Amino acid sequence: MKSTEIPNWLKQRAFLTPNRIAIKTEYEEISFITLHKNVVRKANQLTFAGIHKGDVVSVLMKNSVEMVEVIHALKYIGAVTVLLNSKLTSNELGFQLTDSGTKMMLTEDALIEKVNEIDIEKVLVKEMEQFPEKECHIQEYFSLDQADTIMYTSGTTGRPKGVIHTYGNHWWSAVGSSLNLGLHQDDCWLLAVPMFHISGLSILYRSVIYGIPAVIHEGFDPKKANAAIMNQGVTIMSIVSVMLSRMLAELGDEKYPDSFRCMLLGGGPAPKPLLEKCMAHNIPVFQTYGMTETASQVVTLAPEYSISKLGSAGKPLFPVQIKIEKEGKPAKPNEIGEIVVKGPSVTKGYLNRIDATKTSIVDGWLYTGDIGYLDDEGFLFVMDRRSDLIISGGENIYPAELEAVLLAHPKILEAGVTGIEDAKWGQVPAAFVRKEEGSHITEAEIIAFCYENLARFKVPKSIYFVDRLPRNASNKLLRRKLIELLKDENND
Amino acid sequence: MKSTEIPNWLKQRAFLTPNRIAIKTEYEEISFITLHKNVVRKANQLTFAGIHKGDVVSVLMKNSVEMVEVIHALKYIGAVTVLLNSKLTSNELGFQLTDSGTKMMLTEDALIEKVNEIDIEKVLVKEMEQFPEKECHIQEYFSLDQADTIMYTSGTTGRPKGVIHTYGNHWWSAVGSSLNLGLHQDDCWLLAVPMFHISGLSILYRSVIYGIPAVIHEGFDPKKANAAIMNQGVTIMSIVSVMLSRMLAELGDEKYPDSFRCMLLGGGPAPKPLLEKCMAHNIPVFQTYGMTETASQVVTLAPEYSISKLGSAGKPLFPVQIKIEKEGKPAKPNEIGEIVVKGPSVTKGYLNRIDATKTSIVDGWLYTGDIGYLDDEGFLFVMDRRSDLIISGGENIYPAELEAVLLAHPKILEAGVTGIEDAKWGQVPAAFVRKEEGSHITEAEIIAFCYENLARFKVPKSIYFVDRLPRNASNKLLRRKLIELLKDENND
Repeated sequence: MKSTEIPNWLKQRAFLTPNRIAIKTEYEEISFITLHKNVVRKANQLTFAGIHKGDVVSVLMKNSVEMVEVIHALKYIGAVTVLLNSKLTSNELGFQLTDSGTKMMLTEDALIEKVNEIDIEKVLVKEMEQFPEKECHIQEYFSLDQADTIMYTSGTTGRPKGVIHTYGNHWWSAVGSSLNLGLHQDDCWLLAVPMFHISGLSILYRSVIYGIPAVIHEGFDPKKANAAIMNQGVTIMSIVSVMLSRMLAELGDEKYPDSFRCMLLGGGPAPKPLLEKCMAHNIPVFQTYGMTETASQVVTLAPEYSISKLGSAGKPLFPVQIKIEKEGKPAKPNEIGEIVVKGPSVTKGYLNRIDATKTSIVDGWLYTGDIGYLDDEGFLFVMDRRSDLIISGGENIYPAELEAVLLAHPKILEAGVTGIEDAKWGQVPAAFVRKEEGSHITEAEIIAFCYENLARFKVPKSIYFVDRLPRNASNKLLRRKLIELLKDENND
Repeated sequence: MKSTEIPNWLKQRAFLTPNRIAIKTEYEEISFITLHKNVVRKANQLTFAGIHKGDVVSVLMKNSVEMVEVIHALKYIGAVTVLLNSKLTSNELGFQLTDSGTKMMLTEDALIEKVNEIDIEKVLVKEMEQFPEKECHIQEYFSLDQADTIMYTSGTTGRPKGVIHTYGNHWWSAVGSSLNLGLHQDDCWLLAVPMFHISGLSILYRSVIYGIPAVIHEGFDPKKANAAIMNQGVTIMSIVSVMLSRMLAELGDEKYPDSFRCMLLGGGPAPKPLLEKCMAHNIPVFQTYGMTETASQVVTLAPEYSISKLGSAGKPLFPVQIKIEKEGKPAKPNEIGEIVVKGPSVTKGYLNRIDATKTSIVDGWLYTGDIGYLDDEGFLFVMDRRSDLIISGGENIYPAELEAVLLAHPKILEAGVTGIEDAKWGQVPAAFVRKEEGSHITEAEIIAFCYENLARFKVPKSIYFVDRLPRNASNKLLRRKLIELLKDENND
């Protein structure tokens, strides 16, 4: 059976509604037809640079119009795009470039330093502007089964895995979201989260599939985000709790216009005081649950339930099914187990990781590793992300990855990492370390060592020296018991 | 490759938004959860009656809540549903029942007379209410490749063909429409066209997929339709020109509420005076082009173009592509040729008609037989439906089918049928007949003969006796030249 084909998204959109606005920044507004023309030029320049259909191309950029153009241009060619997290260290990026089989890397002045020492062909997008054009054979159709993008996500085992998103995963995510949130002709989505994360990238896709503008911010600035809602016609924004708190603080007593209809809140359950503050401000908060593997939100809580179902992530999107499994069997309502998700936006698997794919995805069901339950009405409550995932300001941090770095230090014998609550970031990582006997090492030294090897947001905020780590009978680290070591310390 | 699966539409909708209204009639409002429960009961009763997954079941009913329940119940079981046009004659119905391999027929008192003499198992839906329930194995997922419904459409060759619609055809039609028209939480769709046509059935599907109410009218009544828009919160209505004219006449000087946002007008281009009258009344008209084979509209003209692109059907829906072919090659802009359509809502083929399927659908492109062109901006202009299709008050009439009936009369030697303009119905069929030499037969006799063999709406409004019919060199009837015989007559 042949996979369903859809006309090239941006090209079709530029044909159907050429003059609608595709992108707004602080300085300019770009129509779909102009964006399409710019993308054709970039596709031709990339073709000149030697990129062909099927090539893997990595993009290391900050949110910008150029980044949007590059992402679309790679689709026009039919290349597979790896979205690299610009906060990662050189070592981390090097692994992803090698693992993905990247042929060429597109980046910018501000970031190229990170990859200077990596032996891979690099092109600065600014310089590409000067390239001659070689006519690209534009992909007129996107096959829903075709690989579109790769995003790396770490896991409980430490080594990052490349999540492959097909065109179909992204398409179904956009459709599922619109069937839930509705679609208004005057919709306008604020994109102030990174496009190298699924939360940002999915907004870009919705923009072309829905025919609505995305307001693009390079980084998150609460004042600018509020201004975009107040003055630029933004009706929907994707956000995490730490961003929302800062926007509310900046907003003061002002209120958003009535046309602002959806604050789509991801990255873990929101604290009640924050939700109450939003209610007082008439801000409709839609809490969501999703992950890279599901190509953005798959479960959403409508605002009318935000207090009555406090802590719930809501119900699945229309094309999605959810179940809870406990010891391999379906759990009863209110019984806690692993959250398992099925739907056409769920990834078909991890790049080069047949075993990890087989473990995670069984008969179309994604075993998320997250723990939770469904109440009597089928609302999902997420108890714990992937047993030990730390979500800090919307970024995922995997303890295993930090532990691997710590253990690489010659003076550290054992290490365990867990998240501790933090008023600003939701959670921050804390490390528990057992030193090599007789050796001397300070907290500052360990933190400095981490800075060398880890993206800034992953570096533990505190280091605790301990005599032994909590382990079970088979010597497996019990990360959730680490926090109890702190209580003991305080009691002492 | 496994086809994409979506959770059972009504069941999922009843789980996600149980208390939203699914159906409104003059007398009652039914929520999705109540509809689901009623459908489970019907599915159980149909199971008791011996219907299994994969069985072909024909439905001969007028629009009603029971008809909605039956259609969903057959999906719960996984049976294939044939939607029968209640205006057809016994002979016409008999052919469709046999051709489709119908196992059982579901009908109602008012219609059973038509099929009394047909040897097939019939169940009156009213009587089914008394059946015991036998637990049905509910289809939890709909595979997008699975056959869902069959609707018969005649063609240029006369013998009706069963168009197979998969779940995917209907799904993509609903999604394509929402990406074009948008989707508001307060949307409400007036269903006053027959559910045995794709125009009516597609509204039923949109209701469950979008989670919005359908207001169901048994038949079209301009006063009731206006009242539904005025008082029942209708925001969208599917309509054809003859209905719209009658509603405007009935409306007088009144205006629809601002919340009414879309008059979706199918069945051929609208006359300019009608469109101007709609503008004066602030009624947003979306002209559309579509057919049974495309599972409803595939091309739509937004209201802002209704006058500047007068006569155009608009641009394709997002998942759809259109091209014009002339002598097997793509036509240039403004060049007239055959309209060819591709998209995931296009049928995979006709039941039991491998040859007709191969001729009509090539590499996913549907050769519609309709004639038209694309202007410089890509707007579609339909010149002529299927060379000789007559559209009368939204019903398709195929000359070849009428001619076959006429030729079956012993005193008729040759017959040709074409559409002539009619102020009320848009078009009506007229027949040109050459009598057996020396025989005597009157217009009234022929019309009476037609009533016995054809649905009422297909019966020619006038019969013209002629000495010879216009034919080309290979003796093929030139239907478009029939009308010239009339001019000659008037000139005589």
